[in-house]
Amino acid sequence: MSVASGAGSASPGAASRGSASPGAVAVVGTGVIGRSWIRVFVRAGFPTRVFDRDPEQLARAVAWARTSALDDVHLGLCAYAEAQAEERRITVCETLDEALDGATYVQESGPEAIATKQSIYRALDAAAVPEVVLGSSTSAHDMTEIARGLPGAGRCIVAHPVNPPHAIPLVEVLAGAETRPDVTATTLALLRRAGMAPVVLDRYAPGFVLNRLQAAVVREAVSLVGAGVASPEVVDIVMREGLGLRWALMGPFGTGHVNADGGVGSYYRMYGDAYRAIWQDLDPAPEFGDDVIDAIDEGASAMYGEDAVPALSAWRDRMVRRILQLKAADPAPRRAPGEAPAND
Amino acid sequence: MSVASGAGSASPGAASRGSASPGAVAVVGTGVIGRSWIRVFVRAGFPTRVFDRDPEQLARAVAWARTSALDDVHLGLCAYAEAQAEERRITVCETLDEALDGATYVQESGPEAIATKQSIYRALDAAAVPEVVLGSSTSAHDMTEIARGLPGAGRCIVAHPVNPPHAIPLVEVLAGAETRPDVTATTLALLRRAGMAPVVLDRYAPGFVLNRLQAAVVREAVSLVGAGVASPEVVDIVMREGLGLRWALMGPFGTGHVNADGGVGSYYRMYGDAYRAIWQDLDPAPEFGDDVIDAIDEGASAMYGEDAVPALSAWRDRMVRRILQLKAADPAPRRAPGEAPAND
Repeated sequence: MSVASGAGSASPGAASRGSASPGAVAVVGTGVIGRSWIRVFVRAGFPTRVFDRDPEQLARAVAWARTSALDDVHLGLCAYAEAQAEERRITVCETLDEALDGATYVQESGPEAIATKQSIYRALDAAAVPEVVLGSSTSAHDMTEIARGLPGAGRCIVAHPVNPPHAIPLVEVLAGAETRPDVTATTLALLRRAGMAPVVLDRYAPGFVLNRLQAAVVREAVSLVGAGVASPEVVDIVMREGLGLRWALMGPFGTGHVNADGGVGSYYRMYGDAYRAIWQDLDPAPEFGDDVIDAIDEGASAMYGEDAVPALSAWRDRMVRRILQLKAADPAPRRAPGEAPAND
Repeated sequence: MSVASGAGSASPGAASRGSASPGAVAVVGTGVIGRSWIRVFVRAGFPTRVFDRDPEQLARAVAWARTSALDDVHLGLCAYAEAQAEERRITVCETLDEALDGATYVQESGPEAIATKQSIYRALDAAAVPEVVLGSSTSAHDMTEIARGLPGAGRCIVAHPVNPPHAIPLVEVLAGAETRPDVTATTLALLRRAGMAPVVLDRYAPGFVLNRLQAAVVREAVSLVGAGVASPEVVDIVMREGLGLRWALMGPFGTGHVNADGGVGSYYRMYGDAYRAIWQDLDPAPEFGDDVIDAIDEGASAMYGEDAVPALSAWRDRMVRRILQLKAADPAPRRAPGEAPAND
């Protein structure tokens, strides 16, 4: 199959590019998530100002972003000249003030400790002119806590990506108690222009939606290995060759929606007791110590390779892109209520 | 992209077809799962003998299997003549004895109540010659319980598919306490020849692996909607545009394996406390009554269509096929320990 042919709206950045040049953004904090945000923004045409308090991490991140821009060329998603243009959009900054100079949006990706986040936000709020929106990649904290007491709490918002944002467009957007509605709207518009797919959460829960669903699966997966029900390899295969194939297309509710003629409501009413019976049997706090972690690590290393991160993550990135392209080329056949069934 | 080009080993049935014709199989019980098994076996070249105590359900299932064989023609996976040959491999039987006549393997897909399963297995064990393996599609019961006290308990085994088996090759295989090792081996070989991808579970737990992982996700998804953290639509989007994209490729452990340089062991040691903190916050028994079910049903209907089952399940089938083709054409880059990283 041709990778390039289906690019269209599945190509991050391409779909939402307007005709006018977008304003500059600042990426503050350049670990694994921050450096991936650099690639998101430059690919979508944003002048991108980059800062990290650790100059070595900053240099590594920018080098990574410049090199990895070439991956899009290899995937046939952009021409070499375009990748070179992406590199030129990166401005490496030596101070926070320099990074904020002219930026209209900040994507903060610093360390997760709440005190650190609060300290970073105090600095950002003091340094940025009032119009600038301050988005955080936090995967753990409520913006109500991070921005408590700041004069600019109204412009602070959570914009939590999936790892890695340069491959997976989903972003969880969550306002704090003081966040202004126009800040949510501005953030959604900017992220869409950056080729991302933001969703709005309605209230805070630890782990938001994504990491809570992930934690629920990891807990049960760890429990199954620890209890000797299946090997780590089998648990991963059951997910990637079974459940994951459906969830990559329809999520848990859509998966239930095709399981009964009357949709997910009928399905849950039919199997509610079966679900409750399994819920009662799931271990709420499985052993998660060295023994089970070592067994999982050995199983994963045997399946994916011990030194798997570079090759496996490159594979994940291109395969995710292709699945997104499949879905963009042949979207789910939604019909309005009452409409006649499609002829397939 | 061409659907046909990547068929190869991702085409159920095609990969494992030997040169000699396979022996006959019997499909006993022809609801949604049983009828899909008919399609699995005829596509892989097995003469398929079909029986259901309900003659109307039997007639509907055979009609469905014959019609749906044409889907493979539409997908470019087989020629029309081949689909016609598939139809001719189906033998509709009026009695259980007739279905078992000459069959070497039985795939039982009757109702889930344990007493019903036991009654079916008594009848199967009494009627089938001793060499015949008796596999069950049960998603709920331990074969130790189903076959307890039967003279032929040693040839009874769980072979639990994913819905629908004609699209998703994974099968959970689980021996009962008395199941002979050669019966497990025979079942694995037969399922592979049928184009399926069986995995062996090591011991029974309610829901096996697949439905326990699914129940863990559904519980948290229901809880998030009920607690007002996010709408049903957003929960499904977070899964299908986020977590599901990774899990369709690598499962939960593989996903963790690329999240830290040292693999999933390092990752879990680094984030173990973060996981435990979320685990403690997950609701073990969320409200699962009419209010939340109605909200989920409305959300799913708005996203996927109220009358979604036929079109959405056809879409799921072809999209699953394509994702399997992508993975067959570009498998995960596993390297042996110590091998040099691949050049990507």
